[in-house]
Amino acid sequence: MKPSIPKGTRDFSQVEMAQRNYIFDTIKSVFKIFGYSQIETPAMENLSTLLGKYGEEGDKLLFRILNSGDPFSKLDQSQFEGDSMAITKQVCDRGLRYDLTVPFARYVVQHQNDISFPFKRYQIQPVWRADRPQKGRYREFYQCDVDVIGSVSQLNELELVQIVDRVFTLLNLNVLIKINNRKLLTGFAEIAGQADKVVDITVAIDKLDKIGLDKVKEEMLEKGLTQQAVEVIEPILLLSGTTAEKIAKMRELMNGGSVSKIVSEVGLRGLDELEELFDLIQNSAINTEVEIDLSLARGLNYYTGAIFEVKALDYPIGSICGGGRYDNLTGIFGLNNLSGVGISFGADRIYDCLKALDKFPAELQKTSQLLFANMGQDEIKYILHIAKELRLNGVAVEIYPDNNKLKKQFDYADKKSIPFISINGGNEVADNQVNIKNLSSGEQKSFNKEDIKDILDFIS
Amino acid sequence: MKPSIPKGTRDFSQVEMAQRNYIFDTIKSVFKIFGYSQIETPAMENLSTLLGKYGEEGDKLLFRILNSGDPFSKLDQSQFEGDSMAITKQVCDRGLRYDLTVPFARYVVQHQNDISFPFKRYQIQPVWRADRPQKGRYREFYQCDVDVIGSVSQLNELELVQIVDRVFTLLNLNVLIKINNRKLLTGFAEIAGQADKVVDITVAIDKLDKIGLDKVKEEMLEKGLTQQAVEVIEPILLLSGTTAEKIAKMRELMNGGSVSKIVSEVGLRGLDELEELFDLIQNSAINTEVEIDLSLARGLNYYTGAIFEVKALDYPIGSICGGGRYDNLTGIFGLNNLSGVGISFGADRIYDCLKALDKFPAELQKTSQLLFANMGQDEIKYILHIAKELRLNGVAVEIYPDNNKLKKQFDYADKKSIPFISINGGNEVADNQVNIKNLSSGEQKSFNKEDIKDILDFIS
Repeated sequence: MKPSIPKGTRDFSQVEMAQRNYIFDTIKSVFKIFGYSQIETPAMENLSTLLGKYGEEGDKLLFRILNSGDPFSKLDQSQFEGDSMAITKQVCDRGLRYDLTVPFARYVVQHQNDISFPFKRYQIQPVWRADRPQKGRYREFYQCDVDVIGSVSQLNELELVQIVDRVFTLLNLNVLIKINNRKLLTGFAEIAGQADKVVDITVAIDKLDKIGLDKVKEEMLEKGLTQQAVEVIEPILLLSGTTAEKIAKMRELMNGGSVSKIVSEVGLRGLDELEELFDLIQNSAINTEVEIDLSLARGLNYYTGAIFEVKALDYPIGSICGGGRYDNLTGIFGLNNLSGVGISFGADRIYDCLKALDKFPAELQKTSQLLFANMGQDEIKYILHIAKELRLNGVAVEIYPDNNKLKKQFDYADKKSIPFISINGGNEVADNQVNIKNLSSGEQKSFNKEDIKDILDFIS
Repeated sequence: MKPSIPKGTRDFSQVEMAQRNYIFDTIKSVFKIFGYSQIETPAMENLSTLLGKYGEEGDKLLFRILNSGDPFSKLDQSQFEGDSMAITKQVCDRGLRYDLTVPFARYVVQHQNDISFPFKRYQIQPVWRADRPQKGRYREFYQCDVDVIGSVSQLNELELVQIVDRVFTLLNLNVLIKINNRKLLTGFAEIAGQADKVVDITVAIDKLDKIGLDKVKEEMLEKGLTQQAVEVIEPILLLSGTTAEKIAKMRELMNGGSVSKIVSEVGLRGLDELEELFDLIQNSAINTEVEIDLSLARGLNYYTGAIFEVKALDYPIGSICGGGRYDNLTGIFGLNNLSGVGISFGADRIYDCLKALDKFPAELQKTSQLLFANMGQDEIKYILHIAKELRLNGVAVEIYPDNNKLKKQFDYADKKSIPFISINGGNEVADNQVNIKNLSSGEQKSFNKEDIKDILDFIS
């Protein structure tokens, strides 16, 4: 029986890893030039850290780890009766992290005395969810988060926009950055006269892209919004024009200009933030298109200010990056009043985009630059020094380990996309020569074995 | 209550990550120039893959993952009676990987049709063991493995020696590479006339460094070896001289020259391998000292040929790297006759060495190269373009996000070891100037804001 891996998990082959590393390395290089640095947290967290942070549904999706040392032997018969969750609690103290956000909040609170705020960190690690596996949804996948915590300045939001811009410019993906502000959503609810319904309004608006305006209105009415409330919200969703025009119109509405005449202070603060952010964006000469999307809501409840979503323009795959500002993320662990903002890059979706659009650099297929064929032990000894020199110059060089038929050695080079082969028999050894063949052009050249620089030129 | 992490796990701060990445990146760069490429396997494996591969003790150290969807609710009362391990089996199908070797064997068998052999792969991922946590022993730690599978040539062994040599040369650590061959250990047992006692002999010899020759002899006698057997083995352990002398003397003994007069064919094959490997090493001009250590045994049972261990010479920490050849690793998953050889770098111990010997490059402390102080919104807008240009040139640049007192901004630069600060107020903006101060030398200079190249020169 062939061995297999658990449902919803994946092996990554050498080419897949090269492609994934290309994404991660690009993202990391951008995080770095903006002064973010990496932390790592353990895969296992105490369940007390994780439980209750992702809602009831999230708790069910946590992978729990059985306590070591045969925990069942410590339970007596009576404890098995009845409540099965009670057993779980007794035999599992730890779980695998569900995301990087809660471990980050835990980290900040735990290490608050060693951290210089504003704290700019990134983290790229796998997370685990006991979700039903399906196309594009895995039980183990990487998240790639960047956050700054301890500053309320919109410069931080700008920086995240600049990071997104730079990452997708480098990855050569056309994207659109959509921005909204949670305070505006609160504002909608307030000027609609239904501040208590902000969650229902947000959830309904969030579906605008998928189900259309009529269905969104229907859903709001079903959730108990009044007809007038819906009439206040509808024109907001239909707003068009430039960013400045949208902001001006919104300001009018939030200032008592809607049919309800209600003024929303929170909404106006959201507009100030949005206006400041767009002003900064205009001064930062980025390549990527950025637009206000008033229907953007994003599910997570902890956002309190700007929210972001990045859409790939040339491939239909939903959002490939998203995030926002949270005013009290660390409050769940007892450290209040620490505002932060962050985004998360969806590595798997970015991978799918680059794959579908054939945008991975071709050289990622290549493992080595040059293969020395194996013509026997004496020839190998002759080659060792040359291979060493080339490697010291940073070139990936292989020596075929076995003295097999040349056909087999060529096949190996071919399968591994190695572009150059060097075959050196007794004659080359006697003449201090190195013969190298370009496997795609067929060009072949001999070098004196001391002329490392010429060899490097030929194979680069 | 401050949140915490599970016993035996660790958070890694930004500086620790920079130092760990320095180790991993160095190792990866070397793997790469030798033509090895990366794979990854999931953290979770089916327990059927893991169980029975690490001995009874190992099985106990596996972290098991509770099946999702409330597995206890599916058990009936009668199943809880008696055998607690029977419950474990019913509620846990998966576990966290214990090492990278078994997942690698599983990977090779599962993907054998997609792999070009010889298969040169490396893998750097965390593993988990429910060991009792203690100084230097963790429940979650990284392994860093490099293997080639599908070739019996000693060139592969040579390549691993070259990799070790290059890695520790780059890390600036003095090491000694110790080499032995498992076939020689079998040879010892054969010429001692006690082929059945090879494991006991190996286990005893393995302790030579720690307990000394007398205790090793005592232990062999206790294990039932005859006095004559011990007399055959003792002179082997006392062998001295050059590698050539050791090999010559061993050859004599294996060829019937010991007091038992027994000839060991396996032992002679081991000597041939060792001789070939040392011949290759002599032709490869490596920096590191390599020696035969006939007392080197290494615990793992699956080794069948060369075995390696790397010792740090300037810090007492045991072995920091080790491995060997295994003739049938994939046999546990039904694919036979695939010989491979590999080594594993002990990242945590290498970290401890570099830390203790103060050999981490100082620049790893540094997060960014330059901090632009925040003097207000207009000044920030002026700075944005300059910061952008510097970042496009690969320099890590931060803009302090809040318009705080300068003292606080200086403190931030200091705590993050940022070497340059740029303070630009109304005058600089009016004059199109950029003022930059070297925080360690105190040197201060003004630049025209267009002179990016001069700025780069000053801050590099």
